[in-house]
Amino acid sequence: MALKAQVLYDFTAEPGNNELTVKEGETITVTNKSIGGGWIEAQNSRGEVGLVPEDYIEFKNEFPAFPAASTAPPSNAGNAAYPDLSVFDAFAPVSTPAQNQASNGNDPWSAWNADPSGGTNNNWASNPEGTQTGKSAPDPWGNVSQGHPQAYQGPAAEDDEWDDEWDEMKSSAGYAESESGEAGGIQRGGMHASSMKISLNKFPGFSKSGPELYLLCKQIAKGKDKLSIYVGEVGPVWSYPETQIDCIVADPKKGSKMYGLKSYIEYQITPNTTNRPVNHRYKHFDWLYERLLDKFGSAIPIPSLPDKQVTGRFEEEFIKMRMERLQGWMSRMCRHPVISGSDVFQLFLTYKDEKDWKTGKRKAEKDETVGVMIFTTIEPEAADLDPLEVEQKCEQFSKFTKAMDDSVKEILTVGNEHWKRCTGPLPKEYQRIGKALQNLSTVFTSSGYQGESTLTDALTAAGKTYEEIAQLVAEQPKKDLHFLMETNNEYKGLLGCFPDTIGVHKAAIDKVKEGDKLVAANKITTQDKVAMSKRLSTMSYTLQAEMNHFHSNRIYDYNRVMQQYLEEQVKFYETIAAKLRQAHGQFTTM
Amino acid sequence: MALKAQVLYDFTAEPGNNELTVKEGETITVTNKSIGGGWIEAQNSRGEVGLVPEDYIEFKNEFPAFPAASTAPPSNAGNAAYPDLSVFDAFAPVSTPAQNQASNGNDPWSAWNADPSGGTNNNWASNPEGTQTGKSAPDPWGNVSQGHPQAYQGPAAEDDEWDDEWDEMKSSAGYAESESGEAGGIQRGGMHASSMKISLNKFPGFSKSGPELYLLCKQIAKGKDKLSIYVGEVGPVWSYPETQIDCIVADPKKGSKMYGLKSYIEYQITPNTTNRPVNHRYKHFDWLYERLLDKFGSAIPIPSLPDKQVTGRFEEEFIKMRMERLQGWMSRMCRHPVISGSDVFQLFLTYKDEKDWKTGKRKAEKDETVGVMIFTTIEPEAADLDPLEVEQKCEQFSKFTKAMDDSVKEILTVGNEHWKRCTGPLPKEYQRIGKALQNLSTVFTSSGYQGESTLTDALTAAGKTYEEIAQLVAEQPKKDLHFLMETNNEYKGLLGCFPDTIGVHKAAIDKVKEGDKLVAANKITTQDKVAMSKRLSTMSYTLQAEMNHFHSNRIYDYNRVMQQYLEEQVKFYETIAAKLRQAHGQFTTM
Repeated sequence: MALKAQVLYDFTAEPGNNELTVKEGETITVTNKSIGGGWIEAQNSRGEVGLVPEDYIEFKNEFPAFPAASTAPPSNAGNAAYPDLSVFDAFAPVSTPAQNQASNGNDPWSAWNADPSGGTNNNWASNPEGTQTGKSAPDPWGNVSQGHPQAYQGPAAEDDEWDDEWDEMKSSAGYAESESGEAGGIQRGGMHASSMKISLNKFPGFSKSGPELYLLCKQIAKGKDKLSIYVGEVGPVWSYPETQIDCIVADPKKGSKMYGLKSYIEYQITPNTTNRPVNHRYKHFDWLYERLLDKFGSAIPIPSLPDKQVTGRFEEEFIKMRMERLQGWMSRMCRHPVISGSDVFQLFLTYKDEKDWKTGKRKAEKDETVGVMIFTTIEPEAADLDPLEVEQKCEQFSKFTKAMDDSVKEILTVGNEHWKRCTGPLPKEYQRIGKALQNLSTVFTSSGYQGESTLTDALTAAGKTYEEIAQLVAEQPKKDLHFLMETNNEYKGLLGCFPDTIGVHKAAIDKVKEGDKLVAANKITTQDKVAMSKRLSTMSYTLQAEMNHFHSNRIYDYNRVMQQYLEEQVKFYETIAAKLRQAHGQFTTM
Repeated sequence: MALKAQVLYDFTAEPGNNELTVKEGETITVTNKSIGGGWIEAQNSRGEVGLVPEDYIEFKNEFPAFPAASTAPPSNAGNAAYPDLSVFDAFAPVSTPAQNQASNGNDPWSAWNADPSGGTNNNWASNPEGTQTGKSAPDPWGNVSQGHPQAYQGPAAEDDEWDDEWDEMKSSAGYAESESGEAGGIQRGGMHASSMKISLNKFPGFSKSGPELYLLCKQIAKGKDKLSIYVGEVGPVWSYPETQIDCIVADPKKGSKMYGLKSYIEYQITPNTTNRPVNHRYKHFDWLYERLLDKFGSAIPIPSLPDKQVTGRFEEEFIKMRMERLQGWMSRMCRHPVISGSDVFQLFLTYKDEKDWKTGKRKAEKDETVGVMIFTTIEPEAADLDPLEVEQKCEQFSKFTKAMDDSVKEILTVGNEHWKRCTGPLPKEYQRIGKALQNLSTVFTSSGYQGESTLTDALTAAGKTYEEIAQLVAEQPKKDLHFLMETNNEYKGLLGCFPDTIGVHKAAIDKVKEGDKLVAANKITTQDKVAMSKRLSTMSYTLQAEMNHFHSNRIYDYNRVMQQYLEEQVKFYETIAAKLRQAHGQFTTM
């Protein structure tokens, strides 16, 4: 049966790019799902065929991403005989075909698609209480009062189970987001810059005048492990650990609960420090992200988790891709001296058992050195900075990150088009060339003329060679362009976080500028003013250290990815040349 | 000033091929004339840009192809002060801009464009008298009676001049065709199979029952150089000369006459036999073609002259292309043992002086062994053939040539599309990739971070490399695809001639089948019947010899062109690989 899809947003084809213009609500027939690069080939009602962005459409009658889920008979949907099942259906990561039909595309999927800000992190934004205080852990007993069936498992429930109820207490929308991400993430065009989800009034007592919380706080909290900043060749730098932490994300395993009604993927993370693997679900990564964002977001851009950027809707491909991106995210976190050294990150990588994990979670969620207060833990070795220099530096970083963001997006756009051409029209053309040569060979064979075979064999071989080239061309993007795109996608995400981080600094600069006025108005004392610019200078050292960290990583990453890309490109062209040389050898004018 | 063009025929763009749909009469702006392959890039009134076949449009305000022609002041058009000039204007190969404007696109060009059957040879079809008898040479004095000004030059006129009047006596349409071909031939899509212009009632006394002229002729004309057919390994073959004739067509020179009002291109043809160059204008090639067609057309397919297949409307390119194709045509004629040995062909290659040429022309035009009568000169060494075998052979050849014709057209279509992609979207894309990398490099340079330069230099180099690749891609088709297309174009033309030749044989076969009936009806004697099938068998030997000649040439030609094509393709991919390897070397993760 032809796979139908519904168009979610208008999409206008770019001329000459083999794209198909579609209108919201239109139904199209998917003719090729495995184009890759976030594109599918589809045919509209007028029979026109072309490429459409995967994230602009919604598949109809799609089978659930989780076979496990499909074990629930379709007839269960809203079937009174199974009251509790239907309760879970409302939260089920993927609904069964029957439900899809019933909901006429109003299932959680489309809701998720339609949400442009998208991504797991939103459920936090949507219930700030979750982060207002570090105490978002609900009282399990609360579940009973809400009569949630699962509550009857009581305290015996293992931590994950218990997490689930807690999640399920959230708005189903928020839930749908977080789980649908895990169930079959949709490529979000990869073109929207993701950004950190911090907002100036998201932190404890953090208001528009947020930075003053730190700038004016009476005493720097004690007994914290301090974060030192040294002045190196390139300027202020973080103090890097002796041994670079890294970890391997691997071996995704499917787990299921509630009699197979809910399933999830568990990844195995093995740090090079302990070499002892720990298991985490996507939602645990998400929890880690939130902690890091709260704690370091004002000083260090924390890239969003891979989620909306995931390509491919089919489990195998999806899990592989997500794992690859979680690996990339974890490696980046490991490479950061401050993050990799933090308690919460260490907990994530090295917790001994469920109890250890649970306690650590509690502790992390109670941590009050979050938001701008992180600066209280920073100790620059160098002298104070001139506020003017501080401002200039801040401006420079702001300009650079913006410019790089634009440039990275340009590469992604061009790469995306190249991907389409290499997987669409180009191989088709080589195939047709190959076929034409083989057809000619067939005709020649019918000539009945002597000594025909040398030519016809050679022609057939040449034709087959061009069919092989078609294959090579179509497969190449996955071998090289893929990594170039992934790296730039990662940087797009990272760069999207800088405005928030830099915003905190700009707010602090403005506050310090008001210093004299505030003194005159007796709002602050002269000591306060001195303290403020001293602390602003600490913030600037932090930003500079962070930028230098960013630059050194960037230089390494782009050298590596370009090497990788060009190496594969060379192999690609050499392979083709070799194949053609072989084909050439078969012809003879002797 | 933007070059405007008028659309002559509706053209519907093929989706995904970067083509532009245009309607007859529409005016478009040409944005790129040098696409090649018979295509131009144009923009329509709605601002859409795409490729349009060159032969579907007519350029406006185009400069005359011949600078010489433009020496006639535009104001001359229809200027009463220059009556004779305006007379010639009507016949002028190219009209001046002023004339184009005056005629609002109704100049000879568009008339010529609009003629689908096209080509120089048509003017013969349009006045059969020209060929009814071999005596198409007009009486020069006739010109006087028609009061043609040039006639007053009388007999003193050099032969070429005199030729012109003779030409000009034809319908101006016919004239426009034959000269416009010489002036700036238009690519006729290269996709219509050209065919010989013989028709069954084109030869002396040749009617629907044409072959009987030979089948029943009372006596085989004497004193002719006989054409022998031997039976070789592959079957009946022509007797080939000891030394293969060949010639070089080179050194096109512009000549002009009538005070520079009319100019022409003269080519130098040097046969390897005499090594003495002779000069010929296109019209002389055309004359030769007509002679060969009349004399050998029933037995040997005579490919049309390169004319309608010429690509490119600009003099330099056009002359180069026509010379290349005249060379191809001449080489093919030289390779044919019967044609290369014929008096008329020898005359063309080796005439000593104008007088010699003139006499030879007269003689050739008086030759009466034309049409089916050519078979009277053929002597097969072998025994007579069973009529059934004759018919089967004929069927087989008919099938094969039809099948090859289809296959060759498929290659031309695919090649044409490939040409477009390689000269259009593909290089644009590589260019954009190159630019994107260089832009990123520029941004990085602005980071102010130490040790940036290694990466930025490498990125810039990589970017430039992709711009070079864009260039290579765009130029490649001229280096390899061009020859593949030319060879197949030539074969398309040749194959288009077989139906006529084979038709003559089929008519003969039918006639012989009627043998008994005719005897019974006392229309022919029993000896006649015997003679008929004897002569049919001679015709069959001829056809088989011709097919074997065709096969051996075909095998050689396709081996050669495929070798050439693949060799260039290998070079192409190796060059790219080498460039990329160099770019790769500049990145470092040390």
